[in-house]
Amino acid sequence: HSRRPEDTRYVMVIYSGGTLGMKYAPDQGYIPVAQYLEKKMRTYPMFHDLDYPISQDTVAAFSPNTPMALPATYHKYRILYCINEYDPLMDSCNMNMDDWAKLARDIEKHYEQFDGFVILHGTDTMCYTASALSFMLENLGKPVILTGAQVPLSELRSDARDNLLEALIMAGSGHYGIPEVTLYFNNKLLRGNRSIKVNSSSFDAFDSPNIAPLVSVGVEVTIQRGIILERDSKLQLVVHTTMCCDVGILRVFPGITATTIRAFLQPPMRGVVLQTYGAGNVPAEQPVLLALKEACDRGVVVVNCTQCMQGNVTTNYPAARELCELGVVSGADLTVEAALTKLSFLLGQTHLSVHNARKLMARNLCGELTPLTSAL
Amino acid sequence: HSRRPEDTRYVMVIYSGGTLGMKYAPDQGYIPVAQYLEKKMRTYPMFHDLDYPISQDTVAAFSPNTPMALPATYHKYRILYCINEYDPLMDSCNMNMDDWAKLARDIEKHYEQFDGFVILHGTDTMCYTASALSFMLENLGKPVILTGAQVPLSELRSDARDNLLEALIMAGSGHYGIPEVTLYFNNKLLRGNRSIKVNSSSFDAFDSPNIAPLVSVGVEVTIQRGIILERDSKLQLVVHTTMCCDVGILRVFPGITATTIRAFLQPPMRGVVLQTYGAGNVPAEQPVLLALKEACDRGVVVVNCTQCMQGNVTTNYPAARELCELGVVSGADLTVEAALTKLSFLLGQTHLSVHNARKLMARNLCGELTPLTSAL
Amino acid sequence: HSRRPEDTRYVMVIYSGGTLGMKYAPDQGYIPVAQYLEKKMRTYPMFHDLDYPISQDTVAAFSPNTPMALPATYHKYRILYCINEYDPLMDSCNMNMDDWAKLARDIEKHYEQFDGFVILHGTDTMCYTASALSFMLENLGKPVILTGAQVPLSELRSDARDNLLEALIMAGSGHYGIPEVTLYFNNKLLRGNRSIKVNSSSFDAFDSPNIAPLVSVGVEVTIQRGIILERDSKLQLVVHTTMCCDVGILRVFPGITATTIRAFLQPPMRGVVLQTYGAGNVPAEQPVLLALKEACDRGVVVVNCTQCMQGNVTTNYPAARELCELGVVSGADLTVEAALTKLSFLLGQTHLSVHNARKLMARNLCGELTPLTSAL
Amino acid sequence: HSRRPEDTRYVMVIYSGGTLGMKYAPDQGYIPVAQYLEKKMRTYPMFHDLDYPISQDTVAAFSPNTPMALPATYHKYRILYCINEYDPLMDSCNMNMDDWAKLARDIEKHYEQFDGFVILHGTDTMCYTASALSFMLENLGKPVILTGAQVPLSELRSDARDNLLEALIMAGSGHYGIPEVTLYFNNKLLRGNRSIKVNSSSFDAFDSPNIAPLVSVGVEVTIQRGIILERDSKLQLVVHTTMCCDVGILRVFPGITATTIRAFLQPPMRGVVLQTYGAGNVPAEQPVLLALKEACDRGVVVVNCTQCMQGNVTTNYPAARELCELGVVSGADLTVEAALTKLSFLLGQTHLSVHNARKLMARNLCGELTPLTSAL
Repeated sequence: HSRRPEDTRYVMVIYSGGTLGMKYAPDQGYIPVAQYLEKKMRTYPMFHDLDYPISQDTVAAFSPNTPMALPATYHKYRILYCINEYDPLMDSCNMNMDDWAKLARDIEKHYEQFDGFVILHGTDTMCYTASALSFMLENLGKPVILTGAQVPLSELRSDARDNLLEALIMAGSGHYGIPEVTLYFNNKLLRGNRSIKVNSSSFDAFDSPNIAPLVSVGVEVTIQRGIILERDSKLQLVVHTTMCCDVGILRVFPGITATTIRAFLQPPMRGVVLQTYGAGNVPAEQPVLLALKEACDRGVVVVNCTQCMQGNVTTNYPAARELCELGVVSGADLTVEAALTKLSFLLGQTHLSVHNARKLMARNLCGELTPLTSAL
Repeated sequence: HSRRPEDTRYVMVIYSGGTLGMKYAPDQGYIPVAQYLEKKMRTYPMFHDLDYPISQDTVAAFSPNTPMALPATYHKYRILYCINEYDPLMDSCNMNMDDWAKLARDIEKHYEQFDGFVILHGTDTMCYTASALSFMLENLGKPVILTGAQVPLSELRSDARDNLLEALIMAGSGHYGIPEVTLYFNNKLLRGNRSIKVNSSSFDAFDSPNIAPLVSVGVEVTIQRGIILERDSKLQLVVHTTMCCDVGILRVFPGITATTIRAFLQPPMRGVVLQTYGAGNVPAEQPVLLALKEACDRGVVVVNCTQCMQGNVTTNYPAARELCELGVVSGADLTVEAALTKLSFLLGQTHLSVHNARKLMARNLCGELTPLTSAL
Repeated sequence: HSRRPEDTRYVMVIYSGGTLGMKYAPDQGYIPVAQYLEKKMRTYPMFHDLDYPISQDTVAAFSPNTPMALPATYHKYRILYCINEYDPLMDSCNMNMDDWAKLARDIEKHYEQFDGFVILHGTDTMCYTASALSFMLENLGKPVILTGAQVPLSELRSDARDNLLEALIMAGSGHYGIPEVTLYFNNKLLRGNRSIKVNSSSFDAFDSPNIAPLVSVGVEVTIQRGIILERDSKLQLVVHTTMCCDVGILRVFPGITATTIRAFLQPPMRGVVLQTYGAGNVPAEQPVLLALKEACDRGVVVVNCTQCMQGNVTTNYPAARELCELGVVSGADLTVEAALTKLSFLLGQTHLSVHNARKLMARNLCGELTPLTSAL
Repeated sequence: HSRRPEDTRYVMVIYSGGTLGMKYAPDQGYIPVAQYLEKKMRTYPMFHDLDYPISQDTVAAFSPNTPMALPATYHKYRILYCINEYDPLMDSCNMNMDDWAKLARDIEKHYEQFDGFVILHGTDTMCYTASALSFMLENLGKPVILTGAQVPLSELRSDARDNLLEALIMAGSGHYGIPEVTLYFNNKLLRGNRSIKVNSSSFDAFDSPNIAPLVSVGVEVTIQRGIILERDSKLQLVVHTTMCCDVGILRVFPGITATTIRAFLQPPMRGVVLQTYGAGNVPAEQPVLLALKEACDRGVVVVNCTQCMQGNVTTNYPAARELCELGVVSGADLTVEAALTKLSFLLGQTHLSVHNARKLMARNLCGELTPLTSAL
């Protein structure tokens, strides 16, 4: 570290996979190809400044990866970065708790050496991973930004180049220095555990319906300082990787039966996000409620989240109040993605009792939830 | 009918229940109270014109309900209406296939006598009911408008009065005459089987993300004639009430296991909406795919719908293509609500083979789905 | 005052005119009719609770107007209010500096007696009046809420009832107690001097593009406490009514000539809002710039505001910088309405030098402007 | 033409100036530098495919400009294009009628040779130019797409690359083939004479408030075929370049005097866009109305357009009706930009009487205006 030029910032790009780096193959459509992305990026002048002299010390610092240099910007820092490519590249729809753990460990491993991290990730489960990492990386003090694209970087028309470029700038600029797990897409930096994929085909694919974007990018960059988490820089990063796999999401629908609920909540299931109607309601039929009560009594942590994109669950209506009495935890304005990964995280903490896991589910840990206040 | 004044239109309000008509009870919050809504409405001059002389013939025509008269408007018609209140009033989170059938039969029973229908309904499952009715009321030639409110009509601050008033005007005015099952909320008339509840607490609670509102209300009323369904007035209304109950929604999540899928898809389940990632993807693990294949082979109709609020499923990615090969039907841009109720409707048609049910799932029946076209 | 019931709040409605209170006349369209609005309102149970016993003391307190009582709400206060109707009722497109002064004096006159004020106003110039009053009512410590409607309250379909009702609640509820001049429309309370009329026909007619709504109304009422002005309750209300009439708005357009500029800026014109392109640019032609310079040299205060609905003027481009050097003041993110009325206010302060008027134009007086900070 | 490869499409980029092509100079900010843009573009692989063999015939066809080749896409066409750079490069805030004529003539000159045109233009007056060209290019049968950027293409963070790339694709792809003057910005293709600059600093800077975008770009490209103009391919392009300079925009404001109106409308002014309140209202004071009447009587064409971003002028209110009687033309839902340039165009047609110019102002010529229909 001692020989690192003062005016540089180091960013590690963890390339886990996803559409952003894919190649078009005539008969197969888009496919992942090893090393293809970095090779492509090196041909674009905005991703690699061939004129910047990279010292041997820098090369050593990035080893075994090879550094690239962003062109100079108005910021006082020159951003150097490397691409840590996963082998094999993963389709995000196949990613699960093990993959989240691998990402968390990779960040832990390189935490001291780098000023920020960009994770390239498929859009399908990006919000699940971002949510999970927000819980797994306790006392995070550096930016971890997930990004990806709806169309590969190698295509003529693509959202990949702008998403990746801005994520690199934000991860590397001390100025932004947002010590959170975030998601950058289409000119907006969203809190990871608040984000959802709202559109399967638009470039404006992500949103955080219950909280404003942390940063909006235009001619000017507008940072909502008031809502960014404050971290105590004296606290050490603590990485949690024991996530519970026995969690799931059950969406309520008209005609849902106690049999279906029992089948879904049966062991080994230990935590379930119940996606309820509106402000937190389920059919108030005795067999349905009994099936939920049985699971709660057995120690399953059931969290009440709304099916609506925006808003939160309350206890204004009898149906929602009844759930509370059965032992169901109110998920407030948690996204389904944040609720699932928070369950997986809490139930993975072996020292935690069911009682305490339920209490923590309803409490704000890292910006994922707005505690209920009395409405007017 | 012969003695009905020429310049009048008759509307039946079917009051099934919901927040709109509730009363505030100090220790219980909002509760349904029989006859409370109509009594309240009669005190508001915009809901009942005491000066309009209602003839004995009109009273007889509305019997056993008592007609009310909207004040005169610019339209040439005077709208007379009655409230057909259900006993007991239903919380919409408890409504299911039987209740949809009751609504459909009530519309059939009064179809000739009335020019339009307004259904007052809780907001929680309003989109499910609206979707279901769109399939159940074949050859519908008159407006059936669902509405409700986030706050009861009896409250000082309430969205109920405007929602109900405009629904009455739209159901009764020959001018609008939209022969569809629609949902009116917050100045927008949405196609019922395209609508979803997007916000649990805003007055702007509903949207139809994949199609524009049919009508927008402001100083002027803007009707999107181009997207309103055309009905052949020579065709008779056919009401279908045999809905299949053995249908459900399964949302895919990271770490979902074949065991969970098998448990959910086990008999008697006959139709399942699989809420997939992004453009229609699931984890491409063999056990997961096998569990889906088994269900398809057994004759379960599995429909692929996206978790995203907006957009549709495609076969651009390998994961989605693989689902097709297993026998999973593409749900295109169906909402989850429309997909579930369409499944319930099709599987309730006893003469229909599984093969044909699958074919019809992917076909547009009454405006619920945009057939896939080749993207650029 | 001593006998006023503790649980009541007094609101004065100043009814200056506007669509909200109009009557439909078959051959004339909507026309203002004296006393019509109050008579109508008394027939609606949500505007007047006939069962509430109004004491003789209360009647005396409201004299010469007659109090009405809103129905009880969850708030601890019962809101009593009266309608102070102007004679004649004014079309807002005819209102000018004299009318603003009359409104300001009426608020001053009744300031001690009432807890809040609602001003009924035509929508056409509502933002101009709201902006003007924000400058004229120095140290305002009580809510002054302008509202109106796109469609009269007497019509079946109307936005008037909800706008007026909520304005009354907000003006009368200690809970909200926002000590600013605001504008309430379509479930949003906007800062008056930030608001603009964005749509001539939608019920959602107003917005404040460069600042969030102060309050959003839905099932819950969301108040942005962080952006509401804090007032020192020890300071006395100071009402300024000497406004300068010799102010105007000049929108730049391609081909604008020095002749046109000179004609517009000639005496007696003392202050002009120059509505420029984009981030504050004008044609960089010598005659044009010279015409502006002459006016500035003569002591005309010229303020640079953008033609764009959103955003602000900067000095990033040569054309904008050149304006500064001529003596043109940067209007930052002032609306055109706020800029014009601020000019009228400042130039009406006879003790103020041109130099100081220019300095104050660029400074934030009461929330109307975001001082420029260095962009990244 | 005979030797042109069948699978190619030729696009001419007319680079008039603007932020898109600027260079950053340490002490001056962004400045235009001749040849800088093309040099930069040639270093980006998405703008120039070095591997594509450009024949001598092609070089000859593009002479004196040098062709570049976009990389291959899914479309069957390979797009070849050149940059026709203006000397000097123009700041769009300095552009006027003469510059519009130059652009129109350049399109006419190269019309047969190219399949489509992209005009690079500063954002400040882009909507004025786009509107003007829509009237000047009669019977246009090929795409003319204006684009630009909020941040130069040479910057790391920039909207320029995506805007320019997509404009090239749309101008060159037979598939889109939209024979209109349009404006492409931030994933939307807008009709030129409907567009306005709504935001001075966002990348999403343009909108067409009274009509949907013609094309929306995401993973899929959605074309609103129903609203795209149909052109008769047998009609020849007719280019009009005699525009009247004596036109202007006058925004109404509280306190506006007859003196100001007279000063603005005095000869040589021949056409004025009167930017009125709301649905088309002005102060109904006799001196004001008289000043307008005098101008109308003198033959000045005065067009009534709203100050609101969205909506249109109507004759619902007395103030607006009175204007009609004075001879003021209703601008319906014309943007101010379209109204000004349409005035300039019509008054430039020397054979046209004032009477006919007024009639044509109110008529839809090329998609710029929605004729008024009776509201409900």
